[in-house]
Amino acid sequence: MYLGVDYYPEQWDAEFLEQDLARMVSAGINCIRIAEFAWHLMEPKEGQFNFDYFAHVLDRAEHYGLKVMLGTPTATLPAWLAKKYPEVLSVDEVGIKRHFGGRRQACLNSPVYREKSALISTKMAEAYANHPAVIAWQIDNELGHETSDWCYCNHCEREFQNYLQAQFESVEELNYRLGTVFWSQSYNDFNEIELPRPTIPAKNPGLMLYFYRFRAETITRFTREQATILRKIIPQSQQITHNYPGDYYNKAQNFTDISECLDVVALNNYPVWGGLEQPVEYGKIAMKLDQTRGFLPGKNFWITEQLIGAQAHTIMGYLPRPGQARLWSWQAMLHGCNNLIYFRWRTATKGAEQFCYGVLDHDNQDGPRYHEMQQVFNEARRYASELNQPIKAEVALIYNPDNIFAWKIQPQSVSMDIHHEHFRLYQGFIRHNVAIDVIDIRQAIDTYKVVLLPAPLLLTKEQITKLVDFIQNGGIVISSFRAAIKDQDNSVYFNQDNPWLKVAGLKAYYIESLGNNSQVTIRNPSGVEYQAGVWRDMLEVTTGSDAQTIYNYSDEFSSYAAVTETVIGAGKLIHIATGINDKEFWLNLASQVLSLQSIPARLTPDGVEIIRRGNTDFILNHNNHAIRYNDLELEPYAVLIEGK
Amino acid sequence: MYLGVDYYPEQWDAEFLEQDLARMVSAGINCIRIAEFAWHLMEPKEGQFNFDYFAHVLDRAEHYGLKVMLGTPTATLPAWLAKKYPEVLSVDEVGIKRHFGGRRQACLNSPVYREKSALISTKMAEAYANHPAVIAWQIDNELGHETSDWCYCNHCEREFQNYLQAQFESVEELNYRLGTVFWSQSYNDFNEIELPRPTIPAKNPGLMLYFYRFRAETITRFTREQATILRKIIPQSQQITHNYPGDYYNKAQNFTDISECLDVVALNNYPVWGGLEQPVEYGKIAMKLDQTRGFLPGKNFWITEQLIGAQAHTIMGYLPRPGQARLWSWQAMLHGCNNLIYFRWRTATKGAEQFCYGVLDHDNQDGPRYHEMQQVFNEARRYASELNQPIKAEVALIYNPDNIFAWKIQPQSVSMDIHHEHFRLYQGFIRHNVAIDVIDIRQAIDTYKVVLLPAPLLLTKEQITKLVDFIQNGGIVISSFRAAIKDQDNSVYFNQDNPWLKVAGLKAYYIESLGNNSQVTIRNPSGVEYQAGVWRDMLEVTTGSDAQTIYNYSDEFSSYAAVTETVIGAGKLIHIATGINDKEFWLNLASQVLSLQSIPARLTPDGVEIIRRGNTDFILNHNNHAIRYNDLELEPYAVLIEGK
Amino acid sequence: MYLGVDYYPEQWDAEFLEQDLARMVSAGINCIRIAEFAWHLMEPKEGQFNFDYFAHVLDRAEHYGLKVMLGTPTATLPAWLAKKYPEVLSVDEVGIKRHFGGRRQACLNSPVYREKSALISTKMAEAYANHPAVIAWQIDNELGHETSDWCYCNHCEREFQNYLQAQFESVEELNYRLGTVFWSQSYNDFNEIELPRPTIPAKNPGLMLYFYRFRAETITRFTREQATILRKIIPQSQQITHNYPGDYYNKAQNFTDISECLDVVALNNYPVWGGLEQPVEYGKIAMKLDQTRGFLPGKNFWITEQLIGAQAHTIMGYLPRPGQARLWSWQAMLHGCNNLIYFRWRTATKGAEQFCYGVLDHDNQDGPRYHEMQQVFNEARRYASELNQPIKAEVALIYNPDNIFAWKIQPQSVSMDIHHEHFRLYQGFIRHNVAIDVIDIRQAIDTYKVVLLPAPLLLTKEQITKLVDFIQNGGIVISSFRAAIKDQDNSVYFNQDNPWLKVAGLKAYYIESLGNNSQVTIRNPSGVEYQAGVWRDMLEVTTGSDAQTIYNYSDEFSSYAAVTETVIGAGKLIHIATGINDKEFWLNLASQVLSLQSIPARLTPDGVEIIRRGNTDFILNHNNHAIRYNDLELEPYAVLIEGK
Repeated sequence: MYLGVDYYPEQWDAEFLEQDLARMVSAGINCIRIAEFAWHLMEPKEGQFNFDYFAHVLDRAEHYGLKVMLGTPTATLPAWLAKKYPEVLSVDEVGIKRHFGGRRQACLNSPVYREKSALISTKMAEAYANHPAVIAWQIDNELGHETSDWCYCNHCEREFQNYLQAQFESVEELNYRLGTVFWSQSYNDFNEIELPRPTIPAKNPGLMLYFYRFRAETITRFTREQATILRKIIPQSQQITHNYPGDYYNKAQNFTDISECLDVVALNNYPVWGGLEQPVEYGKIAMKLDQTRGFLPGKNFWITEQLIGAQAHTIMGYLPRPGQARLWSWQAMLHGCNNLIYFRWRTATKGAEQFCYGVLDHDNQDGPRYHEMQQVFNEARRYASELNQPIKAEVALIYNPDNIFAWKIQPQSVSMDIHHEHFRLYQGFIRHNVAIDVIDIRQAIDTYKVVLLPAPLLLTKEQITKLVDFIQNGGIVISSFRAAIKDQDNSVYFNQDNPWLKVAGLKAYYIESLGNNSQVTIRNPSGVEYQAGVWRDMLEVTTGSDAQTIYNYSDEFSSYAAVTETVIGAGKLIHIATGINDKEFWLNLASQVLSLQSIPARLTPDGVEIIRRGNTDFILNHNNHAIRYNDLELEPYAVLIEGK
Repeated sequence: MYLGVDYYPEQWDAEFLEQDLARMVSAGINCIRIAEFAWHLMEPKEGQFNFDYFAHVLDRAEHYGLKVMLGTPTATLPAWLAKKYPEVLSVDEVGIKRHFGGRRQACLNSPVYREKSALISTKMAEAYANHPAVIAWQIDNELGHETSDWCYCNHCEREFQNYLQAQFESVEELNYRLGTVFWSQSYNDFNEIELPRPTIPAKNPGLMLYFYRFRAETITRFTREQATILRKIIPQSQQITHNYPGDYYNKAQNFTDISECLDVVALNNYPVWGGLEQPVEYGKIAMKLDQTRGFLPGKNFWITEQLIGAQAHTIMGYLPRPGQARLWSWQAMLHGCNNLIYFRWRTATKGAEQFCYGVLDHDNQDGPRYHEMQQVFNEARRYASELNQPIKAEVALIYNPDNIFAWKIQPQSVSMDIHHEHFRLYQGFIRHNVAIDVIDIRQAIDTYKVVLLPAPLLLTKEQITKLVDFIQNGGIVISSFRAAIKDQDNSVYFNQDNPWLKVAGLKAYYIESLGNNSQVTIRNPSGVEYQAGVWRDMLEVTTGSDAQTIYNYSDEFSSYAAVTETVIGAGKLIHIATGINDKEFWLNLASQVLSLQSIPARLTPDGVEIIRRGNTDFILNHNNHAIRYNDLELEPYAVLIEGK
Repeated sequence: MYLGVDYYPEQWDAEFLEQDLARMVSAGINCIRIAEFAWHLMEPKEGQFNFDYFAHVLDRAEHYGLKVMLGTPTATLPAWLAKKYPEVLSVDEVGIKRHFGGRRQACLNSPVYREKSALISTKMAEAYANHPAVIAWQIDNELGHETSDWCYCNHCEREFQNYLQAQFESVEELNYRLGTVFWSQSYNDFNEIELPRPTIPAKNPGLMLYFYRFRAETITRFTREQATILRKIIPQSQQITHNYPGDYYNKAQNFTDISECLDVVALNNYPVWGGLEQPVEYGKIAMKLDQTRGFLPGKNFWITEQLIGAQAHTIMGYLPRPGQARLWSWQAMLHGCNNLIYFRWRTATKGAEQFCYGVLDHDNQDGPRYHEMQQVFNEARRYASELNQPIKAEVALIYNPDNIFAWKIQPQSVSMDIHHEHFRLYQGFIRHNVAIDVIDIRQAIDTYKVVLLPAPLLLTKEQITKLVDFIQNGGIVISSFRAAIKDQDNSVYFNQDNPWLKVAGLKAYYIESLGNNSQVTIRNPSGVEYQAGVWRDMLEVTTGSDAQTIYNYSDEFSSYAAVTETVIGAGKLIHIATGINDKEFWLNLASQVLSLQSIPARLTPDGVEIIRRGNTDFILNHNNHAIRYNDLELEPYAVLIEGK
């Protein structure tokens, strides 16, 4: 089990290296990540390479018995490169170039940038591949983060045209499938197709979907190129990874595709960041961890950056309470992280991250955060064998990048947050402390008993067939509103009933966006009533169908169903046609489904997680107050370990 | 009476044309509008014209007895044109070019664009003018909509300089009349005058007024050019129209000028659109209809696009309730529409308007909206003769584009909404169900008994003279705050009393903007009190004047009047110096004025309209609840027809 | 004592000059400011100078016995200059050029602009220097106002590189001191350093501090160049000034440096402006006046523009009540203004300032504002000798431009408003009606008894030494949160205790940004509790220190101090580690400190000021209601003069 810190020796006077490494060892650290922002140090002038500095760092790390993850430095291009080749700088939607002076400003479609990146990574790999301290390589840093997934430069335009040419047999086929005859947008040639930049008043949703896919493919291709370079040079024992910033729902990225280029995935796990006045809800952190684990099924994952203190560039927020970083670290390990690195050894005194608080403060003393880290590492080592075991789940939440893209292109409701729609279905199950996999819609689902299908706007016929087979064989699918409106080209299904609702024996003619001030409620025959938001489909049970209405709307559309269940073969499809807000609804639904599928569950109070790994129960209290669970009195932010 | 749908056969596989036309006929349709976005289909490559497609559509329409309105296709330039002549693309205020991929991105001052537009319209007119199915032509589509009224390209700059040169005898005269000596902005030559682009901190209001007028004239000139082309080619029996999007208060457009280029005006009538969570207030819809009718006095108008279902690009909102589209259709016809076309036949499955719901849904079935349309058409035909009669009104609301522009340039109050200021004066009269004309300030007013003059910031001496004559002869004028501050150059009247207040026997030295959180109230001697907002002039009755104070302010300015009446000759001027919010005030005022002027009126509950056409009363309930009116129990969205 | 108006004769027909001057004299005016926006009038074409117009105005002013302040016209470049040399126009952060049509659009780093400005000022000085009416010169107008302190043009980039080269011995030194190794931002040459334009996601805070200083120096240098030109030509008796717009906390300007180029400073004093619905708090107006006085210690100052009526470009707000302009004028004089000019003689009828109401209204009558001005002038002359005396203070509030810049670069809390943090410390003292100097941190402080040090994020070792000496010798310093984190390069102090807290015997490991919804309170042992916001440091008293805890936090961090006092030598350091909102806290603190330091004070009710000048007490009621103070019944906006 690798436990360590991110370390930037180059940011400190040379005298600190030796004392830092010695202090790390005494703190229980056995691994450091280094070098991922150090292009200028390794190539100070164009074509002049110098790898002495980190060779020395590696030697000293080896001396202290520390293992090293190396980062390739392509996230931060050097100033000489930006100056000599300004065409590498990316351009925003309105045509404004991003300038040197931050990070991630380069366009991954720039030929010069790809060439220079290939060269520095090649040279670096050659320089360090055989060093005994090296155990892993991180490609770049947080690809696509902070809007860098978008660029509208001329290179991108040409590459987009090439991409489209590869996707369609001819421009006529593109015209037909994307419906460009609408608003006279037919193209005579691929080279007439502009990037979707500011226009009046709305863009072609089909072309936009291909643009999202093209942006995603741009990052995947860069990852693949870099991984291929490394793999040719480094030993098989060294793993290749990349560190995801973890915002899986607001990026033009396909994280499954990227992950398939890697040996193992890694997450930068920050449960609070910047100006947030409260941390992210613990269940959403759990979902992010489960999702990270799901990108390479069956494998655990690294955390390359775990929060130890407050983190911000220019606006700060909530201060993690004493013990809370430990709590979040345990949560991460219990959800599948088996190698954990804190960000960062010592807080920077210069540069843009002066307020990203690391293990050591600016005063360089062994303070509370140092001791909190030490405690986590001591505890974790005792449970290494449990934590290294893979996690087995019977519930799966579906991740479908195309569907996310389709919602981004046409949110339809001002309240639409596709991330939250995933969490809406997930929340009842995490409260029951069952393991949940978040898996790509391409994955096999036949080993699961329950599949959660959040707001599947874009759903292909093949995907529907797979899901129906799953139900027929005894599975339960819970799907939510606006299902299967769109096909793989982001066109609306034409001239037929909605193919997903048809499976359920339903139709929906009346539909309504509910906005931010929705007063709509749903009600069942017993008079139980819940608030609804975001959207609603008014469901009609079609003649001869087996669908059962569970909830109706309670206003003038009260003859229409909001929640239905349909028995299909040996399984069941539960369809929820609106965005229900009450936690209670989701808790009851999960209870019922877990019971039906005989999945063992343990309901805990809100904010409390109990997770069994091996024969040990780990109990976490995310609440800022003490709480009683069974016979246990859990202090705020407590981590209790029982059994073994 | 033409009743029909907008139809885009080119967006569907060829097999649908025949069945669509047949279904239309059986639904009661006798007219379709086609072709207004089909430039690429008619000129797929530069100079290569092909009119076969719509010739075939016209033939088949003729076969089924359907009449056709043709749209010229200039609202959506083809991709080849944008690619070859990028200078045709318009530019926003900060200099960012609008790109291909939407609609209306062309600059109407671009010589190439005007030439290419003239050519396609000429060729199209030649191709179809003599087809027996054709009854009318729509020029372009929603000119000026969606910010396309603004462009800041180099063509516009040159044309603006030419425009100014035509308006002023010399640059010295411009300098003098616009006061460019202020901030050293004197010009030595017209070619030094930049478009009013981003600067620090404020622009010359006189130059801005001329810029608004120039923008308005740009659209008028384009309409005139296109109308002239069509008129030369098409038979006299075919009418020329243009479809207004209906937002008459937020555009740099002069709708009177544009209308004068047309045979008949047309409105696209959407009482709810996009993300609106509630429909537009019914009285504001009525005002828009009355205003559309007023652009060509004495004539009724077309509706070229009438809402039948929810309409949105990317964010949706309120779903029109069953029956509500019928209600709005009847309201439109009762306010002067005598030919009505629904948008659109079948909902698009591809392109930017997938969520603009038409008569048929994506499933292509005869659904509820189909039946609602059919009902409207059946009903309307029975009352064709009533609906074809012109409407006669004794109350006129003044539309003055220059005044609207002046308010846009200097809103003065953060709460200023010049559209609402028009409605403020209109609201009491519509509640009394009297006919109201909205007429341009250039029109004769001597046939009216009441004239409403909303917030006439810019009011010329000639206009004042005409209004005073009207009052002298027995008319009543109701004017509101901030009257007659500005002259025709947007300069403040100098060195004299305010010329409108002088008419009323008033002065206003103290003035105040009331912002969004106004606590100001007005009060009459009986203690009746109303909330005031937006603005207030503190009125003083000048010595020897006949002005009577009706309301005073109730705070430290309580010695000043807020509402006054002045008898002038045989008539009366009622001046309201602040933005009174309470409906009751306006209801009482209208009651009193209608009674004084002996105009027959029928007061109905809020949300209920009763309109007599011929010998028939049509009663509309816009409320979402049942309501009693006289002996009638009106269901939500009811349309009741009585008499005959 | 000069009392007068700003006058723009060039904006009116020639016939008005004579009657205007005569009316001014009869109103009590003895001074006018003219010409500061009249470049085109003096140089209508490039190199063609014509000074006849203002020569005539000066002659006529002399005839009426009026003295004149002349403004150099460089704030508004003529159209011919913008047209011929477009490179003089400034550019915003994203690269958008500011256009002609407003004011202040020129870049002060443009060589052409500096050359043309030098030339017009030279010629103008030569033309008018020897006129007997001239008593003073105003350089330009409101330098840096309305975002004109920022420009990102190519000239600026080159000058910034030059500036940096002058600040650092080598690029290596820059790299080291600014920590550019972070994110691989090391430069090989100064010419690689771009202006800090849009990038991802954050910029180097050290480079940003130098950029702020460079922007500040740009304006200082322009002032110095212009002052040098004037000084060479004009007689010693004519004073050189510049009129500050008064927003000292949101500008990249160093007002101390600028002031040192001048003979006397001047303020444009607008207690309400634009759309503000209420005037600025009277205490903040007082602080602005005290600060203006402090830029040239020991000297009084001019007000070159004093509000007489409502002031706005396009959005108006609160109307100054009758008598309120007089109140504000007296407040200004009592805080150190001894020459006062109202903005402006007659309200403009043309140009961007039609709604900046002057002494005369658009009707050109002697209205209420005319009479209010006349009253002020009559009253003021009676107290000229008192008002001309300098003001002596024993309390000093520290102004530190570098500290303001550091907070702008990294606000750290979403609620941070460094202006308000200055006022937070000032408020209790102004309520006690003691004189307060606002002085630059470079000034000597040994003549004061109390020093207020607001949120001194950036504090150098030398500054700390000076402050400690001050305390040792019996002074009291009140400092607030986040003290001494940064050094002169905007780096965090490394490897040591916080040097300011160390002085106080304190440490702060836990820190937290409190945002906009803070529920945090502080509490003392007696149970007195106050709300805290913006930020908090959790203070620990270090072992063996003399620090006394006065308030603790009341939540889970209740073992940490929020307010402490430390006796040091003969003085005391009071440290307040959070943003306390309650006025009561600050009132009590000031009471206690004034008493300890034996500074005579008179506590008045909120809104009431009492200021003694010579042997006279002046009592001002800023409240909008009557209030009793001692035996006096003060009407709203009253100015009472007692004694003598």
